[in-house]
Amino acid sequence: MKGTDTPAGARAAYRAGLVAPTSGHASGFTQANLVILPRDWAWDMLLFGQRNPQPVPLLDVTEPGSPRTELAPDADLRTDLPLYRVWRDGELVEEVPDVSGLWQDDLVAFLIGCSFSFERALLDAGVPVRNLEQGRNVAMFRTNRQCRPAGRLAGELVVSMRPVPAALVPTAVQVTGRMPQVHGAPVHVGDPSSLGVADLDAPDFGEPIEFVDGDVPVFWACGVTPQVALMASRPPFAITHAPGHMLVTDVPDAAYRQP
Amino acid sequence: MKGTDTPAGARAAYRAGLVAPTSGHASGFTQANLVILPRDWAWDMLLFGQRNPQPVPLLDVTEPGSPRTELAPDADLRTDLPLYRVWRDGELVEEVPDVSGLWQDDLVAFLIGCSFSFERALLDAGVPVRNLEQGRNVAMFRTNRQCRPAGRLAGELVVSMRPVPAALVPTAVQVTGRMPQVHGAPVHVGDPSSLGVADLDAPDFGEPIEFVDGDVPVFWACGVTPQVALMASRPPFAITHAPGHMLVTDVPDAAYRQP
Repeated sequence: MKGTDTPAGARAAYRAGLVAPTSGHASGFTQANLVILPRDWAWDMLLFGQRNPQPVPLLDVTEPGSPRTELAPDADLRTDLPLYRVWRDGELVEEVPDVSGLWQDDLVAFLIGCSFSFERALLDAGVPVRNLEQGRNVAMFRTNRQCRPAGRLAGELVVSMRPVPAALVPTAVQVTGRMPQVHGAPVHVGDPSSLGVADLDAPDFGEPIEFVDGDVPVFWACGVTPQVALMASRPPFAITHAPGHMLVTDVPDAAYRQP
Repeated sequence: MKGTDTPAGARAAYRAGLVAPTSGHASGFTQANLVILPRDWAWDMLLFGQRNPQPVPLLDVTEPGSPRTELAPDADLRTDLPLYRVWRDGELVEEVPDVSGLWQDDLVAFLIGCSFSFERALLDAGVPVRNLEQGRNVAMFRTNRQCRPAGRLAGELVVSMRPVPAALVPTAVQVTGRMPQVHGAPVHVGDPSSLGVADLDAPDFGEPIEFVDGDVPVFWACGVTPQVALMASRPPFAITHAPGHMLVTDVPDAAYRQP
């Protein structure tokens, strides 16, 4: 058993300096997106999540100034992710493995559900996940659907797309529909153009995914949505996880599956 | 058809001066609890709801200063409920049918799901609802379970109790479990003492409900929870609906039932 096989072990390794994508570490435990904002902007973000639960499923929101989360009680959010991004006025200024020196008393952390959890559930149900088979980051697209705005935050829904064999589309819908805290059921099945997606081979984020004969494109609300809305509104200061370098929580994936 | 049979008709009647409990008006449409707070306190309330979704299911949260809600786009939250309560420093100071004169630019309104919606679903599933049969307000109790605190808000979980025939308890659990936005599945079935409830005949709020032979006490998280936590923390100013005098929304009850 490797040190990164358990949530506490993985976090200890990142804290000690390991910088690596978290995919495959502490298998079976939920990984979460991280957004950290000053208290003044946290209101907008919390309201944006309340109003747009599919793209912004809030798993936890911390007290201002506290680096502790209920999702991993012994974790320190300032040190226990492998890599962070630091943003000023909406621009990425650096990637660092520790944000202790940047911490402020008024910072609020948002832990947001992620599709890693439902990909495991799809596999368990016999639905192939092409991006995993192909070893690629999932394809993500901006759409013509607007989120419901909240304060200074507004923007279009961003979706992830996975090719699913036609006969397994109902299974994929039902399996993910039982996981509303990690984006839930798809928002769209088939016909990319009516969702405002022009070319499946040219994703706005991530990598193109190859289709197998008989696959249908299935679109889920994506956690990139709040980051796009947030950075467009140019908050003076923000910290996020670096893509793929998530918080490994103590919560089993199964905890987010409804019966 | 009476004027109060439709959501818009009921709201117009209240706006014109009708003061009456909303139960039975605009049957089939969701009614919501209302809490209005200054922006500074709204953060605590929004976070309390995010952390305690069973007792505080937030159906909508308005922009600061706006009396408009997505749940009833043509409604004015300052005039369209039949009766309001006004609170200062945590004390009830008056009940009024219109709060237009008290409105401030920084007020945020919270619309919170209510058990009226799941009582209808229980009836539809053949589960008797004793408080309706007996024409009484449901019995509500403080418990020994603490909510997860948020900022200045903390307090015990308050539950509503309904006697359910033993053979129908599973149905009651399943039916309400599919309605997480209106309190969801029960939090406790049977044995009041282990929940910290000493005497079912002496509720902390509402009225005692009589049991029929073979009934089991079933406890659901209750919307009184946030009001108790809020008033204990003594915000300088708050407006709520008067008990039983809710917002009648345009949202069909069925919209909050999951498949």
